[in-house]
Amino acid sequence: MKVVNLAEKLGKFDTHWDPHVVADYNDNDVMVVKFVGDFPFHDHPDTDDFFLVLEGEVLLDVETETHRLGPGDLFVVPKGMRHRPRAEAEAKVLLIEPKGTPNTGDPATAAKKPRL
Amino acid sequence: MKVVNLAEKLGKFDTHWDPHVVADYNDNDVMVVKFVGDFPFHDHPDTDDFFLVLEGEVLLDVETETHRLGPGDLFVVPKGMRHRPRAEAEAKVLLIEPKGTPNTGDPATAAKKPRL
Repeated sequence: MKVVNLAEKLGKFDTHWDPHVVADYNDNDVMVVKFVGDFPFHDHPDTDDFFLVLEGEVLLDVETETHRLGPGDLFVVPKGMRHRPRAEAEAKVLLIEPKGTPNTGDPATAAKKPRL
Repeated sequence: MKVVNLAEKLGKFDTHWDPHVVADYNDNDVMVVKFVGDFPFHDHPDTDDFFLVLEGEVLLDVETETHRLGPGDLFVVPKGMRHRPRAEAEAKVLLIEPKGTPNTGDPATAAKKPRL
């Protein structure tokens, strides 16, 4: 149990679309991740998906709408809604998802979510 | 369903120890709050308590330890652990708690958590 500095954790890896767990909140993984380029469209039928932009700019396509998020912008994608994050340049994001949630919506292609 | 700018939401109220709900994540309230002074020691027997400092500095007493948090620092107080946030000057914080959690640990003294 200790203070987690998000910038320090983000400095520990260079990969994109590769969420790393930095804390646990009840049965959720609290993660930091770097985005660049386009992620595939997907949905999570059983959970909302929490995004908070820490640095950079994220485009979040949700169904047919596109939302533009900058630092300090938060967006919760409701469960079951198809969505796709994108970033033209590298963006740093705090994510929260229940443990076991595949980030791509599909366990076969999901990231491993290592712990930092 | 829209982008939530945390700074904009924090600009809508001036009260302290008065969390305002800005989004829902599954059965949790995602809140912004301003701290100044000392909050009472309390615990939440059924839930962890999520703090992310957005601005300023927070002292978080957890049982017998004191943790110092600045912007970009996250701390999850495990369920059942006595804790007390403090701030010498105003600090702005993102909180996440399951809906219905009394912020003081006691429904009789809990804040109302209005929605912004």
